[in-house]
Amino acid sequence: MIDQRRLPGELKYVTCRTSSQVAEAIRNMTIRGAPAIGVAAAFGLALTAARGHSGNIEEFKREISRDSKELLAARPTAINLAYAVKRMNALLAKDLPVDELRAAMIEEASRIAEEDVQTNLCMAKIGAELIEDGDAIIHHCNTGALAVVDWGTALGCIRMAHEQGKKITVLVDETRPRLQGARLTAWELEQYGIPYKVIVDGAAGSFLRNGKATRVMFGADRVAANGDIANKIGTYMLALAAHENKVPVIPVFPCTSVDLSLKSGDQIPIEERDTEEVLGIEIKGKRVTPKNARALNPAFDITPAKYISKMVTDRGIVEPPFEVNLKKVVESECREQ
Amino acid sequence: MIDQRRLPGELKYVTCRTSSQVAEAIRNMTIRGAPAIGVAAAFGLALTAARGHSGNIEEFKREISRDSKELLAARPTAINLAYAVKRMNALLAKDLPVDELRAAMIEEASRIAEEDVQTNLCMAKIGAELIEDGDAIIHHCNTGALAVVDWGTALGCIRMAHEQGKKITVLVDETRPRLQGARLTAWELEQYGIPYKVIVDGAAGSFLRNGKATRVMFGADRVAANGDIANKIGTYMLALAAHENKVPVIPVFPCTSVDLSLKSGDQIPIEERDTEEVLGIEIKGKRVTPKNARALNPAFDITPAKYISKMVTDRGIVEPPFEVNLKKVVESECREQ
Repeated sequence: MIDQRRLPGELKYVTCRTSSQVAEAIRNMTIRGAPAIGVAAAFGLALTAARGHSGNIEEFKREISRDSKELLAARPTAINLAYAVKRMNALLAKDLPVDELRAAMIEEASRIAEEDVQTNLCMAKIGAELIEDGDAIIHHCNTGALAVVDWGTALGCIRMAHEQGKKITVLVDETRPRLQGARLTAWELEQYGIPYKVIVDGAAGSFLRNGKATRVMFGADRVAANGDIANKIGTYMLALAAHENKVPVIPVFPCTSVDLSLKSGDQIPIEERDTEEVLGIEIKGKRVTPKNARALNPAFDITPAKYISKMVTDRGIVEPPFEVNLKKVVESECREQ
Repeated sequence: MIDQRRLPGELKYVTCRTSSQVAEAIRNMTIRGAPAIGVAAAFGLALTAARGHSGNIEEFKREISRDSKELLAARPTAINLAYAVKRMNALLAKDLPVDELRAAMIEEASRIAEEDVQTNLCMAKIGAELIEDGDAIIHHCNTGALAVVDWGTALGCIRMAHEQGKKITVLVDETRPRLQGARLTAWELEQYGIPYKVIVDGAAGSFLRNGKATRVMFGADRVAANGDIANKIGTYMLALAAHENKVPVIPVFPCTSVDLSLKSGDQIPIEERDTEEVLGIEIKGKRVTPKNARALNPAFDITPAKYISKMVTDRGIVEPPFEVNLKKVVESECREQ
């Protein structure tokens, strides 16, 4: 996997040989992005399957169970991780000999990755239809190819609209504290040749108020049954400011990001990360916060569904009322698979 | 003056010997904060008066006029600078001999500085009444002693409430791009012994939504007749999120920050600053943005009056409707002076 912590300065790949190494890479954000960490977790368990030698089915299940727990604990907010681990574990219920089970798990991880590419391509095509020639889109965090396997969620739609020849510009929220916008989204937009300007997160409101931004797009780490969205910290204020100024708010996510077991966003667990992410900021090589400074660092926030205009999923556009239509889209298509 | 660019790492004083040096210090933000740059500009013109040797009144007026223009152009948004320059220039209309005029201008600058301390102490006492025991106050940018001559505007109220024995905590918006919160407000709160936590600007909304923030306070660089407020970029989104969650939004500013000549905030000029302030951000000694990245960097935004609960001024609390009550407070008291 690309070590995303080193971008854009350095394009370096990291090789994980065990599920524990994958879990550590997810924890320390070598790899990030809700869909990407789901796929990584699936391959983590595939590694466990591939590396084992025991012919004992019970021992094999114990190994998978142990590594599944470690992966699930790596980051709590995004649902994709839990989805991938659950899907890999579902194979254990099949009455297969150990060797076949190992092979099936490796295959399943590859399938999850391949599906992710198809899912993202699908979202990109659907979402690009909501982007008009001349749009200036405020984008939060990173939702591009780096966050998934290829294409991306919100950034995939933007890239597709650009490839369709629409003239668009992107206002890139830098996305403090980890600056995924300034680092990763800006880097991806450079690769695609899409015009962009980086802005501080607090500036988005002024562009929304003065009519210089015409769309707001972002991804989702988990979506509750009522349409509330957990996404990178700062999304809530952005969506609220867009809604207040009648600028369409368009989150883009695969149906696998929807957690119908949660009634509202307030039930989604919010990860608190190391406060050094906030306090360690530097200007001209110098740390700026006082020596004894303390901080709070929630990594995600909840955007209530009422501020969202339309949702883009791999199974189509979801219109309000989301508490009705989201379930319909997610459940109907799941049965067909 | 303290070189605020070096805080909190270094407490270094800068001496200006000419008005041009003062203008440069304002431009490059050695000194910042709307009231502070007003007082600095007054002393800039006092330096021009003190250093001149010509007995020719016309030549003296030309020097003052030239330096006034340079000071006025240093930063466009805050009204205090224009107010101080105007007040210093008003002396020229008096029919005084050159020597007396020079002395009068030096005196006037000192008076503006002294008044600023009194004004701030007054605001601190009035504003502290709006702070309750147990409050958690989100504060944007820096509005403390560093932004004025002493006490400060919003931070002055917070300091006063603390000195009155109220148990309060401050959630310090780091205030990108120049991080006046993380650098200066955190540093001041350390000095006063007031508990605080630094947060990224995008996190304020989540604390407002989940009930962990009970007040929002900030200063103002210019206030229009209808109560719209120009303040540091990010203020608008913060005020909107507070208003949406029914958390009181309390700006604190002296009546000299009110510009009754402007009907609404949209007429206030917004300074665009060097994009390097946005792009130059570093983590662990490394610049994070791509080499060719571009940015937009408006330094201020406009918060519409409708999101504001009450205003604290040196002449009392202003309640809505602001388009009526603000003018009353500003004009009635001006006559008494």
